[in-house]
Amino acid sequence: MKVFSTTFTLPTEERTEIADITKQVREALQQFPVQTGIALINTMHTTCALFINEFQAALIDDLKGLIERLVPERGPYKHDDPRYSDCERGNANAHLRAALLGRNIAVGVKDGELTLGRFQSIIFAELDGPRKREISVQVLGE
Amino acid sequence: MKVFSTTFTLPTEERTEIADITKQVREALQQFPVQTGIALINTMHTTCALFINEFQAALIDDLKGLIERLVPERGPYKHDDPRYSDCERGNANAHLRAALLGRNIAVGVKDGELTLGRFQSIIFAELDGPRKREISVQVLGE
Amino acid sequence: MKVFSTTFTLPTEERTEIADITKQVREALQQFPVQTGIALINTMHTTCALFINEFQAALIDDLKGLIERLVPERGPYKHDDPRYSDCERGNANAHLRAALLGRNIAVGVKDGELTLGRFQSIIFAELDGPRKREISVQVLGE
Repeated sequence: MKVFSTTFTLPTEERTEIADITKQVREALQQFPVQTGIALINTMHTTCALFINEFQAALIDDLKGLIERLVPERGPYKHDDPRYSDCERGNANAHLRAALLGRNIAVGVKDGELTLGRFQSIIFAELDGPRKREISVQVLGE
Repeated sequence: MKVFSTTFTLPTEERTEIADITKQVREALQQFPVQTGIALINTMHTTCALFINEFQAALIDDLKGLIERLVPERGPYKHDDPRYSDCERGNANAHLRAALLGRNIAVGVKDGELTLGRFQSIIFAELDGPRKREISVQVLGE
Repeated sequence: MKVFSTTFTLPTEERTEIADITKQVREALQQFPVQTGIALINTMHTTCALFINEFQAALIDDLKGLIERLVPERGPYKHDDPRYSDCERGNANAHLRAALLGRNIAVGVKDGELTLGRFQSIIFAELDGPRKREISVQVLGE
């Protein structure tokens, strides 16, 4: 068994932007001579998230609604208060939303393909854009 | 090191049903000649979840209460609105609850056994049942 | 490829205590002759959590505020009610908070180092302390 890794860059345009990155992950996987194993997908950042779900426009709007309801844009957040923090982005909500959604995914690889279910997409959530984000794809297998 | 994988099917009977699947995962693991490594457990679906916690009846009721409170059965969800979606199941809440709970688990394997703590169970949450669900178990090790 | 594992102990002093354990995980990793691979970090417990985010004091306070708001200390929790449970710790909130935050992390290893982004720390959340907690670090690689 061997380990392979690569990264790709994802430029985002909105503050909150949710994208299906299954295709990019598939392309990364195809660079590697792996038939059977696992793929780990990570972001290198603390204000975005990665998870697996159905990628359907209406559902994505519902998901945005949920994270806005659970973690409002403007809470009384210390991280956004110059008395407690020198972060000037006012992005406490992005950190907290990322903590709820998670940021790393492990997916099986079989016959050289990701073993995703019919409705499963690998979804990236930009929570403090626009930014340039780096996604890491590691594959362990043979 | 080698990689092994299998799947098992879990029929569910209720809309929301939370089950301890540690035994099924242990049985899957025992099919493989692995003493040391990791086990990855995944669902192939977007409206159920997998996580590790104590499996105790009262706590499971509390967990159901929590996800119902954070993600109500009927929100004004676009995914459930025929103007925005052709999904007729009205299951936006199940997708959103799955996004909060997570769906993939990595557990160590040592001496051929899952390295779970004393109170840790592998827990499956059906969020849009009854359905027939497929769980994948992959083991990397030697 | 080989698999290595170790554990370390973390004594906690507060009921809710959030700590940066990146250094301890790095030290565990350095014991192993691995240049390329993945590291899996797990807790063996059901009332604490592990996740990756920025470790900044004000943000940690915001995170505590969030979990207290989403999962209040005293709900009408069955797990805390002697009619339904023989758990005497009154710690339903800790289990539920752990379920939201997650408890296992996979991080890449490259050139013998964790591939964390500039602001990423591995964060441990004690949710029902003070206790002595065990953290497991497994590394698969070569």
